[in-house]
Amino acid sequence: MHKVLINKELRRVSLVGVGLLGGSIGLALRAVGFSGVRVGVGRRESSLRKALEYEAVDEVTQDVQAGVAGAQLVILCTPISRFEPLLRQMIPGLGPGTYVTDVGSTKTEVVRLAHRLLPKSVHFVGSHPIAGSEKIGVEFARADLFDRCLCLVTPTPRTPAGTVRWVRSFWEALGAYTVTVSPQRHDAVLARVSHLPHAVATALVGLALRGSAINFAGPGFADATRIASGDPLMWTDVFRTNRRAMIRGIDQLIAELTRLRARLHRDDAQAILTWLEKGKTARDEWIAERYRKKTLPP
Amino acid sequence: MHKVLINKELRRVSLVGVGLLGGSIGLALRAVGFSGVRVGVGRRESSLRKALEYEAVDEVTQDVQAGVAGAQLVILCTPISRFEPLLRQMIPGLGPGTYVTDVGSTKTEVVRLAHRLLPKSVHFVGSHPIAGSEKIGVEFARADLFDRCLCLVTPTPRTPAGTVRWVRSFWEALGAYTVTVSPQRHDAVLARVSHLPHAVATALVGLALRGSAINFAGPGFADATRIASGDPLMWTDVFRTNRRAMIRGIDQLIAELTRLRARLHRDDAQAILTWLEKGKTARDEWIAERYRKKTLPP
Repeated sequence: MHKVLINKELRRVSLVGVGLLGGSIGLALRAVGFSGVRVGVGRRESSLRKALEYEAVDEVTQDVQAGVAGAQLVILCTPISRFEPLLRQMIPGLGPGTYVTDVGSTKTEVVRLAHRLLPKSVHFVGSHPIAGSEKIGVEFARADLFDRCLCLVTPTPRTPAGTVRWVRSFWEALGAYTVTVSPQRHDAVLARVSHLPHAVATALVGLALRGSAINFAGPGFADATRIASGDPLMWTDVFRTNRRAMIRGIDQLIAELTRLRARLHRDDAQAILTWLEKGKTARDEWIAERYRKKTLPP
Repeated sequence: MHKVLINKELRRVSLVGVGLLGGSIGLALRAVGFSGVRVGVGRRESSLRKALEYEAVDEVTQDVQAGVAGAQLVILCTPISRFEPLLRQMIPGLGPGTYVTDVGSTKTEVVRLAHRLLPKSVHFVGSHPIAGSEKIGVEFARADLFDRCLCLVTPTPRTPAGTVRWVRSFWEALGAYTVTVSPQRHDAVLARVSHLPHAVATALVGLALRGSAINFAGPGFADATRIASGDPLMWTDVFRTNRRAMIRGIDQLIAELTRLRARLHRDDAQAILTWLEKGKTARDEWIAERYRKKTLPP
């Protein structure tokens, strides 16, 4: 099924945004045998030129409508705040039966927007490959970025099963493991495992700057804060479109830190040890599961 | 100077505790040409046997006093709560002029304890190599663990300059970059760049367990929480012996998260972007500095 999709059904794919993710999709498509045309759509000429140089796409254009014309699949790979103008611009170019998806890190607002703007003749479902890195730009794109990565596909009750099946097959063709989840549950869950950790990493960097403490930081700090080096524009959109779940997460984290504070204040060795042991056990089990399954099943 | 120290002055080194750090010191000593005897002192026979198997030490004993006898250098490499009984046990075995140091992650209480217990004829200064990993046990020891790592040496006003010089030379012989800092400043700084990040990683794992969100976590979460897999016994001691700075750090982090919460609540795109940009810039600069100097200067 995947081979048929990549080699027969798909002849033209539009990647709207050719940074790390768009570029990696382009490279991955070629790596799995796609022989059609990969169109890169972007605003800045320099980014488009780089995408061609890195052979992440075959053609480039700054004209969104022309860029999606004739494509069987269009994937939005820009920061989320660009989605609304881009969807509006691409609509006249989208042929009936075109599949449209995105790689945005939040889904409730994105899916609502797409359903509101796109014509019924277009097949839309949201996606979120849990891949990427803190690096910015097509020069960090990798053909194997989606290999064994978890890709969440987020249908609503009105999304046709065929659309979900097709888009899942596409990601699986690139090597990903797909799971469907509602946009709302996606956002609630990702707030805790991605968006809040990102905010915390940024906060820790801020604290470490006081008194130049950061100059004494080691490899543990480097890993703990790696995500804080991510693209601020992209993450501003993520935070804003998942505000409510982020606020809930912040409140829960503050409550958790307040409990630890009390244990430290009364120097409760056993409670501190138990808390640390619970965290270690849970993380070790999760990591072991990842290694066992070589992926991240639900 | 380093070569003289390792090849001439040192003939017998006692590593009290042969886990990841003690084992790595043993392996590093051999790697830099030390041809004397490395004694491993430990409580459990199984750990001592493993240390011999991995060739991290040459001799082992469960008798602390005998284990330090005749050594020119004794290094405490156990969790901090073991230091007091170990120091008491080793005192009768320590010859005059023996250098004693430790690798504990907090220094104020440790240095106070050592000054209180050790006879004046022994040369003590605290150390903290900012190396290690979340792994536990000599099987993860590495001969290059201290290569280009920052090692903080923490004299007090009464520590003789010669003792500081000698212990710095020892760490530099293993490849480390050394900086001296008071025990109090050490603890204040490390609370922010190491102990608080550790607590936060554990808290994030706890939050991710709710509603099984952790099953949707990706590589960003894995890195952000890696340190939470560290040894709970060791970290309980670290937290307890640096309680006050930890509590201050928690309060500062809660204040920072509360400010972010307000920005999210009023959907202040510019303030969120500026905050994320500041964090990214600071971390990127720190990482660039690390790569440039291949180490972590103050």
